[in-house]
Amino acid sequence: MTPTMDSSSLRERQKERRRARIYNVAIDLFKQGGFQGTTATDIARASNVSRGTFFNYYPYKEAVLLDYGSEVMERLRDLAEQRLAQGVPAMSVLYEIWDTLADENARERDLFPPLAYEVMNPNPERARTAYQALPLSKVVELVLRPLHQEGQIRTDLSLQRISNLIADTYLMVALRWSAYGTERPLKDEMRLALGLLLEGALRRDGPR
Amino acid sequence: MTPTMDSSSLRERQKERRRARIYNVAIDLFKQGGFQGTTATDIARASNVSRGTFFNYYPYKEAVLLDYGSEVMERLRDLAEQRLAQGVPAMSVLYEIWDTLADENARERDLFPPLAYEVMNPNPERARTAYQALPLSKVVELVLRPLHQEGQIRTDLSLQRISNLIADTYLMVALRWSAYGTERPLKDEMRLALGLLLEGALRRDGPR
Repeated sequence: MTPTMDSSSLRERQKERRRARIYNVAIDLFKQGGFQGTTATDIARASNVSRGTFFNYYPYKEAVLLDYGSEVMERLRDLAEQRLAQGVPAMSVLYEIWDTLADENARERDLFPPLAYEVMNPNPERARTAYQALPLSKVVELVLRPLHQEGQIRTDLSLQRISNLIADTYLMVALRWSAYGTERPLKDEMRLALGLLLEGALRRDGPR
Repeated sequence: MTPTMDSSSLRERQKERRRARIYNVAIDLFKQGGFQGTTATDIARASNVSRGTFFNYYPYKEAVLLDYGSEVMERLRDLAEQRLAQGVPAMSVLYEIWDTLADENARERDLFPPLAYEVMNPNPERARTAYQALPLSKVVELVLRPLHQEGQIRTDLSLQRISNLIADTYLMVALRWSAYGTERPLKDEMRLALGLLLEGALRRDGPR
């Protein structure tokens, strides 16, 4: 390795460490003071960087949350792959993924609405960035693929579109739950919505 | 009638006429120059009122769109009531409503995304106002009620929640369609999504 590469990879590691510090400080501040109540200046001050440096790492405050959301999605994907490899039926894996996400969501209930809004940001560039950072529909697709291959999923819509509809429903139900609350825990609310998307609103056994 | 009442009802009528004028001018401007490209100042100038007067009638620009959305919803509700009274099967009525909405939406494709964003506005007050101005889930509930009474709808979720899920899906599919486009017309996209919610992602006839 040349000295140039050494110093450049050192700079890379320094940048990564600084980014991790800013990220951890920001998430702590969000959890303590709420997302809306925490400013970029607060985060910069608490992580000992200038406001400009903060914006070099995260062009907007919501971008910090996208890192958090990506992390959650990665954990879900790993869980899904592990369970499928263990031979757990796809449908059970999907419900387990849903439960895990709803638990995290209910625990960090202030962090999820700004994440969901970011996915629907009127600025298409930001919406796309958020959508790519939060590939929930890709996780759903991964889980449903074996069922699709077995011919158990309807084929008039592509698997990707079906996965999008299921992931979008998660988003909307979570937003309603955060904004208006409900007597049911989020997990139960989510299981019911997932059941509706998988099985349909119409009774399978016909009219009683 | 006393003279006081006369003058007050005259003022009311004047206010209504002015509101209608501002509304019509604004919608025309939105259609010509886009919603984002039209400012409150543009609307005030074109309707010969001051900016302050505009904000007396519409506290924010999106509020004009809510009047437009309310009108669309009223037409859908009337159509639904009329068709049900004519004895058209509820399921056909629902698809007709969906087609009508998708046609309007595709025709005025620039007006719908800001309306959808308003329903999901991070400001809960504004989100609630938008939700009440756009009672799509109430129209869905009205159409599904006869089926619900006949026992053809699943009962683990309330009819209201099922109607919310269907209306929310309309919103998300329309947003995706506006933002990313698709090879399919919005109407077909919407019919497929509605079919999935009614019948479920899993094949009814079991694996082939």
